[in-house]
Amino acid sequence: MDKPPVPVTARCPVRTALELLGGKWKLLILYQLEQSPARLSALKARIPDISEKMLIQELKVMVDSGLVHRKNFGEVPPRVEYRLTEKGRLAMPVIAACRAFGQAYVRGLRE
Amino acid sequence: MDKPPVPVTARCPVRTALELLGGKWKLLILYQLEQSPARLSALKARIPDISEKMLIQELKVMVDSGLVHRKNFGEVPPRVEYRLTEKGRLAMPVIAACRAFGQAYVRGLRE
Repeated sequence: MDKPPVPVTARCPVRTALELLGGKWKLLILYQLEQSPARLSALKARIPDISEKMLIQELKVMVDSGLVHRKNFGEVPPRVEYRLTEKGRLAMPVIAACRAFGQAYVRGLRE
Repeated sequence: MDKPPVPVTARCPVRTALELLGGKWKLLILYQLEQSPARLSALKARIPDISEKMLIQELKVMVDSGLVHRKNFGEVPPRVEYRLTEKGRLAMPVIAACRAFGQAYVRGLRE
């Protein structure tokens, strides 16, 4: 017997996740920052096809939502580094689940 | 010591997942179909704020990518039902991870 369906209310946690992590780039950026803190240029090099404008925009959104910490070293020339916060680290299981899904889906295509 | 960063190549499984599951609605639709197969009207009722046009569009994309099966009963008036495929079921851990993230994030806000 199928489970009684649960309507997706506005405040369902899956939606919260989609709002905070959604889009083409956020999970990829978080994944890179989980590897190590990085400056903008290093992040740009690791995600070759993101524009600098988009990278700056997505980082700002994630700093505002508390997933990423922006550290300004107050030096001249300016040195700024981005790192994952504890909240940002909460997204790692989502990335792992996405990776497993992507691998299984592609494997399924080959079968 | 931080792990050496792994550049995100075009064909990384996380990207594959983002392409197949990305956007505001796909995971919510898959989540509903995991509860039970459904007709368009029933899905629309369970995801109140999606437009019918968007629902039809997202269902078509997921039928094309093999995540959803569209069954036409060949009746008059027409009766069409959508159900999760085995490939579609592969996305359930992503939904579970998103739910856990959303819950933990909101809990973190309250602390």
